[in-house]
Amino acid sequence: MGPQILSVLETPVYVDDMEQAHDFYHGVLGLTRMMEGARVSAYDVAPTQALLVCLRGACDEDVMVRGALVPGHRADGPGHFAFRIAIDTIDAWIEHLEGHKIALESRVEWPGGGTSLYFRDPFDNVVELGTAGIWPNDPL
Amino acid sequence: MGPQILSVLETPVYVDDMEQAHDFYHGVLGLTRMMEGARVSAYDVAPTQALLVCLRGACDEDVMVRGALVPGHRADGPGHFAFRIAIDTIDAWIEHLEGHKIALESRVEWPGGGTSLYFRDPFDNVVELGTAGIWPNDPL
Repeated sequence: MGPQILSVLETPVYVDDMEQAHDFYHGVLGLTRMMEGARVSAYDVAPTQALLVCLRGACDEDVMVRGALVPGHRADGPGHFAFRIAIDTIDAWIEHLEGHKIALESRVEWPGGGTSLYFRDPFDNVVELGTAGIWPNDPL
Repeated sequence: MGPQILSVLETPVYVDDMEQAHDFYHGVLGLTRMMEGARVSAYDVAPTQALLVCLRGACDEDVMVRGALVPGHRADGPGHFAFRIAIDTIDAWIEHLEGHKIALESRVEWPGGGTSLYFRDPFDNVVELGTAGIWPNDPL
């Protein structure tokens, strides 16, 4: 038994325009920007959890931070990740997205009783809002 | 004020071989596989948080689940994400990774007092283990 992982600290999403990304991740999804950068901005998803909004192509190179290397990274293609929402906010989310002219691509009801809403960010990434009842470590 | 996001539910990583991925994410990092699939497997990172291990190229197409569409997704390139670890386990993690012949690429000490360890999964993804003291929503 080795040392333990506690939780997710950072989930990335790769975008092509940081302002447009802010309009979506802050303006529509309501996340607060904790750190604003030209290459990477960080949004507060929950205590101890960050969404890294990475400008595609600008993060490829390694950078030096306080004398140490932070490796570059990149992703091309329509990526995917999911945020967790309360099951009693599904209707409010659907209405909220409609109000922002965000097309709901799909709504899936999972065998465990959970619900997922799928839609796109402005860069074709597949964003999911999911409830309890999707994964075994998060029962209804 | 719209409906709220609670937390990260799913973080993806794209891999080229599911068995090799399991050897790394379970065998080295110690995560339990909650769901095993040919296209996607899900690992238990923490209660309510999943790592989605996605076989690159096999998740591109939309699939139908119980009559509803789950949109396809894809990422090419060396992706990135971070797991959170306790600050008093840094040395144990370095030793643990060495024991598994995983090369530590970098160790960064952040202004807020946190530490990040960077290394690669077998598919060149940049895996980070980070402590408190990196982001404003997770002070030391």
